[in-house]
Amino acid sequence: MTIREFQEQIEAVYGAKDGARGTAGTFMWFAEEVGELSRALRRGNRAELEAEFADVLAWLATLASLHGVDLQAAAAAKYAAGCPRCHATPCACREPVAAHAS
Amino acid sequence: MTIREFQEQIEAVYGAKDGARGTAGTFMWFAEEVGELSRALRRGNRAELEAEFADVLAWLATLASLHGVDLQAAAAAKYAAGCPRCHATPCACREPVAAHAS
Repeated sequence: MTIREFQEQIEAVYGAKDGARGTAGTFMWFAEEVGELSRALRRGNRAELEAEFADVLAWLATLASLHGVDLQAAAAAKYAAGCPRCHATPCACREPVAAHAS
Repeated sequence: MTIREFQEQIEAVYGAKDGARGTAGTFMWFAEEVGELSRALRRGNRAELEAEFADVLAWLATLASLHGVDLQAAAAAKYAAGCPRCHATPCACREPVAAHAS
């Protein structure tokens, strides 16, 4: 499944509802899922962990759709050629100065 | 680009570094990127917004790799058949009881 296919799937399932809710409300749901991922990373079982990763990805995709961002294009543009800061694979950036070229 | 290809790409670039940092430290980086996405959603230009979406996805992929989670399999298992709670496309769940079947 491509990133774009997943984004389109989430848009088909939740696009109308998320569009009506708007960015701020949708971001609150996204943030709640980030919190649930944190909890699952600390103490979740395998099924909970996988479900929380799926949820965070789904809400990220919805937020991207709400703003007309093609998540796959954005991801490939920044990371397909290696670290966007040091241009190496593996990344040779020194922390804490840079990691993932944020 | 599939979700799996992106996760593998991020693992090739950052896997060693993120593995050495561990889950807690890596989650802090992820959370920082979530904050930057929030700021970009409020006031970022298009390039900033796309970059922040890419960053959040990259850190999410790294966290999944750290825990042996196949992000694509997890996403497809939960969302490929529609809303996992109401099983409809589009989702027919009533808010605030359920959204994205979190």
